[in-house]
Amino acid sequence: MSKYWSPIVATLTPYVPGEQPRDNNVIKLNTNENPYGPSPAALAAIRAEASDSLKLYPDPEALALKVSLARYHAIDVAQIFVGNGSDEVLAHIFHGLLKHDKPILLPDISYSFYPVYCGLYDITYQTVALNENFEVDLRGYAQDNGGIIFANPNAPTGIALAPKKIKALLRQNSNSVVVIDEAYVAFGADSMVKLIKEFPNLLVVQTLSKSHALAGLRVGFAFGDANLIEALERIKNSFNSYPLDRLAIAGAVAAINDPEYFESSRQKIIATRERLSLAMRRLGFMVLPSQTNFVFASSPNIGALELVQALRQRSIIVRHFDHPRTADYVRITIGTNAEIDSLIASLEIILNQ
Amino acid sequence: MSKYWSPIVATLTPYVPGEQPRDNNVIKLNTNENPYGPSPAALAAIRAEASDSLKLYPDPEALALKVSLARYHAIDVAQIFVGNGSDEVLAHIFHGLLKHDKPILLPDISYSFYPVYCGLYDITYQTVALNENFEVDLRGYAQDNGGIIFANPNAPTGIALAPKKIKALLRQNSNSVVVIDEAYVAFGADSMVKLIKEFPNLLVVQTLSKSHALAGLRVGFAFGDANLIEALERIKNSFNSYPLDRLAIAGAVAAINDPEYFESSRQKIIATRERLSLAMRRLGFMVLPSQTNFVFASSPNIGALELVQALRQRSIIVRHFDHPRTADYVRITIGTNAEIDSLIASLEIILNQ
Repeated sequence: MSKYWSPIVATLTPYVPGEQPRDNNVIKLNTNENPYGPSPAALAAIRAEASDSLKLYPDPEALALKVSLARYHAIDVAQIFVGNGSDEVLAHIFHGLLKHDKPILLPDISYSFYPVYCGLYDITYQTVALNENFEVDLRGYAQDNGGIIFANPNAPTGIALAPKKIKALLRQNSNSVVVIDEAYVAFGADSMVKLIKEFPNLLVVQTLSKSHALAGLRVGFAFGDANLIEALERIKNSFNSYPLDRLAIAGAVAAINDPEYFESSRQKIIATRERLSLAMRRLGFMVLPSQTNFVFASSPNIGALELVQALRQRSIIVRHFDHPRTADYVRITIGTNAEIDSLIASLEIILNQ
Repeated sequence: MSKYWSPIVATLTPYVPGEQPRDNNVIKLNTNENPYGPSPAALAAIRAEASDSLKLYPDPEALALKVSLARYHAIDVAQIFVGNGSDEVLAHIFHGLLKHDKPILLPDISYSFYPVYCGLYDITYQTVALNENFEVDLRGYAQDNGGIIFANPNAPTGIALAPKKIKALLRQNSNSVVVIDEAYVAFGADSMVKLIKEFPNLLVVQTLSKSHALAGLRVGFAFGDANLIEALERIKNSFNSYPLDRLAIAGAVAAINDPEYFESSRQKIIATRERLSLAMRRLGFMVLPSQTNFVFASSPNIGALELVQALRQRSIIVRHFDHPRTADYVRITIGTNAEIDSLIASLEIILNQ
């Protein structure tokens, strides 16, 4: 604390991201990165853009990227917002669309950055408990609110809400914005982007970090009615004219224009996820039904923190979330088949000790 | 306007950046880009980083970059903040260090994004007129305030305040943060980074956009007492964990570690600036004494808007700022010698018509 700080600063509880170890000799299954790496076309496009043209500012509208996304989703450019990772996109959403007199609603267990944004922008919020199966429970959202946000599939549970239920939620909340964070949608759930023309209160957030193995490039999106996008553009243009650098724009365009690579990588991850879920259930784990690139599981035979430490000793990093309802669970990212083989072998040894 | 927008959104007047023409057949002297392009070492580092490692998140602390900067400036890592261009760094500064009950003070003519940030964060501000020579006038800052910010050298005037006067300002305002935006300091003025150990209320902002010809990479910095930096880190970690992508970190590190290239490019720009200033004065222009990579000039023989249009017809883009005190001036970025030769030839023709 200091007399120089704006008063809000001392009240913040910043987000703590998953560990990014500088040691490369670990099996890193803690931050849901995609093990298959980016499309070769994306890497080639980035290398081509690493040229004299970097002396010039990027296109502040990132129009080439919006055009690629518009074509991919069959929507208009005016229905697309792009930013420096979905974290920046989410920040602008909280600032520009979720700061009202009434509290916003979000699940008690979801992406733990959401309450941090509320702190940053002085937004009041109320959590709604997931049901006993860790599913989003619609009944809790049937109350006056300043907006709703949740991840779908949700994190760290991996569970998706059915499209029919999302439509009911959108109809029930026609006076407030409903934000669906689809960071993990590529791995099995239905995207709601197709609903943006029908529901002017729907905003869908996506990212290239997991789906396109570009966590290191920082590119995220929001899709919604042009009126919602206009609010985000007004915030963005009052914050930073050029949030996406030239390399990020070039790499993102090439990645989106290579759907075959995306499809092949996501199918491999889904297959490995099913194999891991089965193997862990055989070892006695309770594994939630995941539609993401991670599994969320607990064991009656070992505590979650004990398991995290035992895996760490074997150079495998997984993640634990310190919340009463998730204290018994570990979240494990789907790695390559070889990485998951090592994990399963380690789990067998640890549980048999 | 919409019921879905947070109330602040409709009140914003977003910043309008200089034009980024998609036509490459123009001489672009409108947004102060460095014509000599980035260090080859920076381009090589970016290409090397365009690899499978992009599947991994960047280091959220960008420690490699902070270590390079700490070595370059002989300061501590804890005295350094990095962000997605100095525009993002400035946004966090306004939010985290300049939002107090008292109004902040800034020049009536300076970077026109400053009042936009005030709008975004609901910060009250008061402008202080530059003196009749377009210099920052210390007398106007001898009043109670919530902080002070100006560019030094200032934009679009190109004029720097002497270090002695900056020290006096820092002493006189020991209860508030004084932000010196050094976007253009590489081209002739003294940097105040050396004063951060002496003045706990000093924050210095820099960018690689102009000095290192990396406008397309989006990398900016703030330097100050660790206590000021902590406020910015708290804001940043409540906004976006990873504002710098892997390519930006790699390119920035390599650019900072190539001081010979930087020195050679800045010397060429300074020489061309002096040549252009002389040529324009011979054509009757009043040219302010620039310590930047642009000149700010007016002519008794032609109106500024008329000149902008006449140059545009000759495929040369320069910038005009629509403010009563700058209405007669054009701002011209220092391009290559060939570009500036074309500009001078065009000015001769236009003024002789």
